[in-house]
Amino acid sequence: MNKKKSNYSEYALFHLAVDSIIFGFDEGELKLLIHKRKFEPFMGDWSLFGGFLKEEESLSDAANRILFELTGLQKIYMEELQTYGDIERDPAGRVLSVAYYALIPAHRYSEDYSKQYGATWVSLKELPDLIMDHNDMVKSALRRLRRRTASQPIGFELLPREFTIPQLQSLYEAIYQTELDKRNFRKKILSMGVLVKLEEKDMSGSRKGAFLYRFDKRKYERLIEKGYNFTI
Amino acid sequence: MNKKKSNYSEYALFHLAVDSIIFGFDEGELKLLIHKRKFEPFMGDWSLFGGFLKEEESLSDAANRILFELTGLQKIYMEELQTYGDIERDPAGRVLSVAYYALIPAHRYSEDYSKQYGATWVSLKELPDLIMDHNDMVKSALRRLRRRTASQPIGFELLPREFTIPQLQSLYEAIYQTELDKRNFRKKILSMGVLVKLEEKDMSGSRKGAFLYRFDKRKYERLIEKGYNFTI
Repeated sequence: MNKKKSNYSEYALFHLAVDSIIFGFDEGELKLLIHKRKFEPFMGDWSLFGGFLKEEESLSDAANRILFELTGLQKIYMEELQTYGDIERDPAGRVLSVAYYALIPAHRYSEDYSKQYGATWVSLKELPDLIMDHNDMVKSALRRLRRRTASQPIGFELLPREFTIPQLQSLYEAIYQTELDKRNFRKKILSMGVLVKLEEKDMSGSRKGAFLYRFDKRKYERLIEKGYNFTI
Repeated sequence: MNKKKSNYSEYALFHLAVDSIIFGFDEGELKLLIHKRKFEPFMGDWSLFGGFLKEEESLSDAANRILFELTGLQKIYMEELQTYGDIERDPAGRVLSVAYYALIPAHRYSEDYSKQYGATWVSLKELPDLIMDHNDMVKSALRRLRRRTASQPIGFELLPREFTIPQLQSLYEAIYQTELDKRNFRKKILSMGVLVKLEEKDMSGSRKGAFLYRFDKRKYERLIEKGYNFTI
């Protein structure tokens, strides 16, 4: 290992963790991927997925590595949330944690990983007590996700490639934890101009069926750049 | 010092710095407070203001301490931006830096501090090369500030208590680095419903003068909560 002598030896040193708030959308609900911690302290308690930053690893590499190890998924939408640095946050030692939130399509998450890591999808409505400040991290991630949903299109990362407007509506309802008016939602979402209507219908939800849509990726990305206002 | 034994001794340790992107608004321009670094490496080069996290200090305390030491200002609007964690970012040793951006009313920044710390306000239009990844931090902070401006009212932290609409417009123009139409801006900004018109006029800008306004703090904060869309 190519260790460099540091000029900063007079300054304090800290452990750094990366914790991931992994949101998925499944069965009309926004869910969170958690597991029971495998080491002390708090062994057996519900926890976010995390890991320690390694010596020769950048922070973003660590975030991607940890997500990949736990889910087998790559090129996942991830955004840094904030760094948690209270002195007493971990009773076993001073560790600062950089929290990332990730959006993954729940249908792409394999059951194998779930078994291997004891990962469990829990509904945000029934979130158990998590260790340390992990509940705060989830709250903060949910606020960020809502703010992002208010100013940018969302769904690309959470929905299958083809989806119906009722499915998209239930994603928005899950994020905001509230019911939305059907006609209003359809009007607003179509006025964004990022949806492409397909020929086929999804017949599973009703007898009449519902047209399938996909996102126009270029317009979607332009709208992320530009921003807009989605008020519920 | 009340040092605890850590359970995590097998994991790597890192230095942590806090760097502040300090924006001020002065003479119709958005400015940045920088200084010439006083220690190696990069001694004498332009740098953001920063410092190292101490053993018995939370991250947010460190951010506030560093800002206070350098400006004498407290209760400043500060927001965590992101944590910079590339391996090679600092040639003198592995240091991760948590970047915060702060908005301070330039008129409240005392000349004394400026002399003591060699602090200089530079226009964002004439930003020199800064050390390490500090230029990236400024770019990222400016993007965040623009995004925030697009979805929340802004100005409370950067303007004096009483200001004119042309002053507010020049703040928006400085943030977006573009000229805005006078009538449109007035219409949009008044429609936000957060400005309170005062009796007095500011006579310095024109013969007719311009009415002074202040923010309605409660409505301002409600609008921050709710969000809206300001498109230029």
